[in-house]
Amino acid sequence: MTDQLASPGRLRELFSPASIALVGASDTSGWALNVYNSLRTGGFAGRFTPVHPRHPTAFGLATRSSLRALEEPADLAFVLAPTQAVEEVVYDAAAAGTRNLIILAAGFGEQGEEGRELERRLVDTAAAHGITLLGPNGLGFINATAHVAPYALTLSPPLIAGPVGVVLQSGALASAVLGFARGHSIGLSLLISMGNEGMVTTADVIDYLIDDEATRVIALFLEEIRQPARFAAQARRALAAGKPIVALKVGRSPAGQRVALAHTGAVAGDDAVVDAALRQLGVIRVRSLEELLVTAGLLGFAPPLTGRRMGVVTASGGACDVIADRAHEEGIEIPEFAPETVAALKAVLPPFTSPRNPLDVTGYGLAHLAGAARPITASLGAVSRDPNVDFVLNLGVVVPPVPPPDAAALEARLDEQVAIIAVSPVPVVPATTMCADLTEYSRGLLLPRRLHLLAGLDLGLTAIGHALRWQEKRQILPAKSGEYPAQPGEDRPRWLQEQPSGVWPETAGRRLLELTGVPMVPAVLAESEVEAVAAATRLGYPVALKACAAGLAHKSDVGAVALGLSSPADVRRAYARIRRMAAEGVLVSPMRRGGHELLAGVTVDATFGPVLAVGLGGIWVEALRDVAMRVLPIDSSDAHEMLGELRAAPLLRGGRGEATVDLDRLAEVLLRLSQAVALVGPSLQALEVNPLWCRGDQVEGLDVLVVTALEDG
Amino acid sequence: MTDQLASPGRLRELFSPASIALVGASDTSGWALNVYNSLRTGGFAGRFTPVHPRHPTAFGLATRSSLRALEEPADLAFVLAPTQAVEEVVYDAAAAGTRNLIILAAGFGEQGEEGRELERRLVDTAAAHGITLLGPNGLGFINATAHVAPYALTLSPPLIAGPVGVVLQSGALASAVLGFARGHSIGLSLLISMGNEGMVTTADVIDYLIDDEATRVIALFLEEIRQPARFAAQARRALAAGKPIVALKVGRSPAGQRVALAHTGAVAGDDAVVDAALRQLGVIRVRSLEELLVTAGLLGFAPPLTGRRMGVVTASGGACDVIADRAHEEGIEIPEFAPETVAALKAVLPPFTSPRNPLDVTGYGLAHLAGAARPITASLGAVSRDPNVDFVLNLGVVVPPVPPPDAAALEARLDEQVAIIAVSPVPVVPATTMCADLTEYSRGLLLPRRLHLLAGLDLGLTAIGHALRWQEKRQILPAKSGEYPAQPGEDRPRWLQEQPSGVWPETAGRRLLELTGVPMVPAVLAESEVEAVAAATRLGYPVALKACAAGLAHKSDVGAVALGLSSPADVRRAYARIRRMAAEGVLVSPMRRGGHELLAGVTVDATFGPVLAVGLGGIWVEALRDVAMRVLPIDSSDAHEMLGELRAAPLLRGGRGEATVDLDRLAEVLLRLSQAVALVGPSLQALEVNPLWCRGDQVEGLDVLVVTALEDG
Repeated sequence: MTDQLASPGRLRELFSPASIALVGASDTSGWALNVYNSLRTGGFAGRFTPVHPRHPTAFGLATRSSLRALEEPADLAFVLAPTQAVEEVVYDAAAAGTRNLIILAAGFGEQGEEGRELERRLVDTAAAHGITLLGPNGLGFINATAHVAPYALTLSPPLIAGPVGVVLQSGALASAVLGFARGHSIGLSLLISMGNEGMVTTADVIDYLIDDEATRVIALFLEEIRQPARFAAQARRALAAGKPIVALKVGRSPAGQRVALAHTGAVAGDDAVVDAALRQLGVIRVRSLEELLVTAGLLGFAPPLTGRRMGVVTASGGACDVIADRAHEEGIEIPEFAPETVAALKAVLPPFTSPRNPLDVTGYGLAHLAGAARPITASLGAVSRDPNVDFVLNLGVVVPPVPPPDAAALEARLDEQVAIIAVSPVPVVPATTMCADLTEYSRGLLLPRRLHLLAGLDLGLTAIGHALRWQEKRQILPAKSGEYPAQPGEDRPRWLQEQPSGVWPETAGRRLLELTGVPMVPAVLAESEVEAVAAATRLGYPVALKACAAGLAHKSDVGAVALGLSSPADVRRAYARIRRMAAEGVLVSPMRRGGHELLAGVTVDATFGPVLAVGLGGIWVEALRDVAMRVLPIDSSDAHEMLGELRAAPLLRGGRGEATVDLDRLAEVLLRLSQAVALVGPSLQALEVNPLWCRGDQVEGLDVLVVTALEDG
Repeated sequence: MTDQLASPGRLRELFSPASIALVGASDTSGWALNVYNSLRTGGFAGRFTPVHPRHPTAFGLATRSSLRALEEPADLAFVLAPTQAVEEVVYDAAAAGTRNLIILAAGFGEQGEEGRELERRLVDTAAAHGITLLGPNGLGFINATAHVAPYALTLSPPLIAGPVGVVLQSGALASAVLGFARGHSIGLSLLISMGNEGMVTTADVIDYLIDDEATRVIALFLEEIRQPARFAAQARRALAAGKPIVALKVGRSPAGQRVALAHTGAVAGDDAVVDAALRQLGVIRVRSLEELLVTAGLLGFAPPLTGRRMGVVTASGGACDVIADRAHEEGIEIPEFAPETVAALKAVLPPFTSPRNPLDVTGYGLAHLAGAARPITASLGAVSRDPNVDFVLNLGVVVPPVPPPDAAALEARLDEQVAIIAVSPVPVVPATTMCADLTEYSRGLLLPRRLHLLAGLDLGLTAIGHALRWQEKRQILPAKSGEYPAQPGEDRPRWLQEQPSGVWPETAGRRLLELTGVPMVPAVLAESEVEAVAAATRLGYPVALKACAAGLAHKSDVGAVALGLSSPADVRRAYARIRRMAAEGVLVSPMRRGGHELLAGVTVDATFGPVLAVGLGGIWVEALRDVAMRVLPIDSSDAHEMLGELRAAPLLRGGRGEATVDLDRLAEVLLRLSQAVALVGPSLQALEVNPLWCRGDQVEGLDVLVVTALEDG
């Protein structure tokens, strides 16, 4: 029911009303004034009706006493009523036939259990009457395409329509976001302040924006990802549709150390999981609001950038230096020009300039006024035709803040640049040196010419790096789907179904891994000293003894492990010490020497579910957090990629004096480990092989920890 | 002679002329028009005389045919004459009594040997006549304090005077820099385009700015540091004077792999040396032009930030999230408010808000209009008095781009904020959410109130991080001085003085290290098989054999090393193989096992001279470039710091299963190693102990490589 009320069709209705009522409209309310002004700034041309139970007029208009008092129902009502009065307005809307509401009031789900109950009732009431509800605790939306801006903060004109859809989980950021977008002529299709997402959720809006023709790129400010499985499906759909999603996901700082039985949870930080998940999904993660908008602007306006070889045209050696530094950091190449380009440049460049990439035509080349032969313009043509470059970064579009004395000449120069860009065989990306707002005059020069300027070299090259990686991801990302964990089938072994919750005895963990083919070190469960010595003799000294019992975690810490036992006497002594902790018996295993010890485990993220993590033991995971992660499920290529990502990867490949590891074999074991998750099902809390010992093509788990929760917990 | 012409006194004269002549002034020259317009934009009130040999007028003014034709000599001449005609203008200036010249023309030192010769002659001519010369290939300067802006690019008004002195080694960046400074009301004292630095150098200008009262912070765009020893002395002087230097040093991308005999040179990249050197000197290194100006602006306008505990006042939960993330990355704390602050906040905050740090007064708290009781203002007072905070980040200063309907109320609110800031016990730093230009209206509100807004949270918190680290550096930086290498004294051993250049035999390297007390593994130089076996027996098996000869580098690669020999037969075989490469004999040493192997070496940077580098061997230095570096000389605390900086430091401290290392002992050895540099003198090219073996308090060099150049080479 609620789903249908938040469907793309219903959202289209919500976001494009022909008539709007403002409930709580009075001249003394700052909120009401803001909404009224925003509608005017946005250019709303439909019918607007102020509603107030007591004030007879607002903004010089006659009010109605309630929604019921309107002659025709408003398509949308923006509700400023206080928390306790909101539900009554919903009934009014239902009676009047108004199908869409924005609720500003706070004091709902964000305020404890009482507020949550209030919000549930509000949403249920709305749903029962077929009403779509945005908020509560939201500031509204701005549909720049349709000129409808019911928004409760001050908007500064003009509102520029364009390809970027913006979804904010914090509506108060809208003023800053709109100001920056305006300053850089980044046109928006729609901006929505989500509020508490009582009915309409971020995911609903993303679905709408993926289908929305006015939106070419989706920019998100996320405090949390509330429906991760749906988000993942949407990310895949957006990638397939060629509509990039750019996200600023906050909460990067650790929110306190998690206490975890398994080690994987401690080394796989929450934010690192977000990083891994977004990267897997082809969602571009940015680190600042400016980066969010500049990246979205580039993706919304520029043609697709499909190669990393960049030609550069500037009139400043300093800018060339800055570009070279940032390009290097982003992995963007600045190739040498082809001989024919060098020849063409020599013909148009002033003396004392070198026809090299990155190109500096010098101040003389910029100041020279001879029409199309002007060096900064003519060299753009030559560079854009160079066979070695995939795109051109062009600093030749220079627009002053106010009309210069030779404004006509300036416009002619811009037209020349536009003509060259139009016939360029590769994308041309115009940029400025530093991030500075466009003025009304400069916007007026650029917008009609469809020139979008990247906001400074630093943000600009960051955005170009994102765009390149996104295109590459589009090429290589296999069409993965499916949710995890799959509900385990009824045909899984009975002993697995009957395994009690909590920390499993190691024998049960070993049986689980045997089912998916993760190789484990040989182990014999001894229930007496004699059996232990016999097992040790059979397996070969030195051996390790470990207590085996349900509920037994942190075995080393509690003295339930004895390593490096090299004689029957050692084994007997260790057995005597350990047996009291060993409800199920004592595991005897041969010691493994040399090679590498890894940590491979699955932790269950509150948002994304099971996440596989792998890293080298010791300092690598502990101090350096050198851990590769993937939200499950993964395939074989993911497993290979994970190993390649580790900073410690050279160690596995065998540096000087290091043992090499068969990475194909190791990747296969990781994949099998990940497949064990489905066998356990949603009760899984942690599954960890630590250490996972590797030497050459020998890969063996030396210990396994499985922790489950009550199935309904 | 040249030094005196670039002294602070002479530069004061250069930068503050009362009369200016423009040589090459004509209505058809873009350059001339730019200089003329810049002087007008800057508000030059002195006498201006256009000079041209043929055009009788320029800009509606009568020209003079040459500098000699002026009635009174101009204090400064801006020379637009073409390259070959510049020298003649210098003679004119000398004859006319003009003591200061700016030379625009290119085609000098930046254009090969011929250009360098031309430049030398030009500078010599000027110097011979007591003329101070800025450039050639420079665009001039902008003295905003004195309203003198002889600059050859377009300036957009207004030019805002203030505390930031800017030195650009690429003058073409000035337009972007001035635009950004204007957009964020970052007032400049002086901006100089250095050009080729034929006479006046960057160092000369830094000296001037350190003494300049109008300048509180120095911002540098550096392509290269040409006088490193002088730069280091200036950095120390500036730090002592409390005048921060902020630098964007470009050239971060590696300019191709260096071929080096010693390993240290390969792992200690050029840019990493710059990083280390600037950090040592207390110079703030930034990574973008925007960061350069925002950091300089903060340091120029805000009171000193002396503690890391930040109180935060905002009207947006999203802004709080962004702040928390960035603060965490910068190591800035956001402590809990004291109980009295919580109580005070509860009294002024609207319902549904939590009195927590970072504080979000919510949109309601921003929109509420009740004067000084307005929550965003009242809470600033409460937070600024909190005993737990060292400074306050304040997002409550909100200025619209154009006058709002209630402009008077807005100004009253700003005045309330100013009053609270004035009595705040801790610094209050106002900031905006995103980087956006101020308009003329908003600048007009802020400037008279001395409110400087940080340009967005991302750049703003980066700048605050820099400011905090700079203050900390000021507190702890010992007053170090001295240049390196000190000229070695005449009393150094004769054998050292007589050592031929190139790769030293290892025995000579060992003797050098013995002099400064770097412990080396025992070694016996054997000149026969019998001697080798005797030495091995005495030292104890297993042993290593190495060929010893001048000119022998890469010993392992050429098979001149045999390791792990465990019997006399092994030693004899190895000796027979190695002896042909061993002009001086074969070194026999015991093998060392366990512990850690480090690389410790001195490489000689082209700019900064000898640099000590240390790192753990293997993957740490090879793949991860985990190397700590210091420009020499260092003291004991530096050596300790270096070890602490290594990412691999936990390994040395002894992780699980790792051998611990006596870090005091190791630091002492590093210090002694660095002292060996002075004994060799300026001919040193590389000095490397690799491996430097450590276990517990045992620290021993297992091999040493010394490379010297011809003393005059």
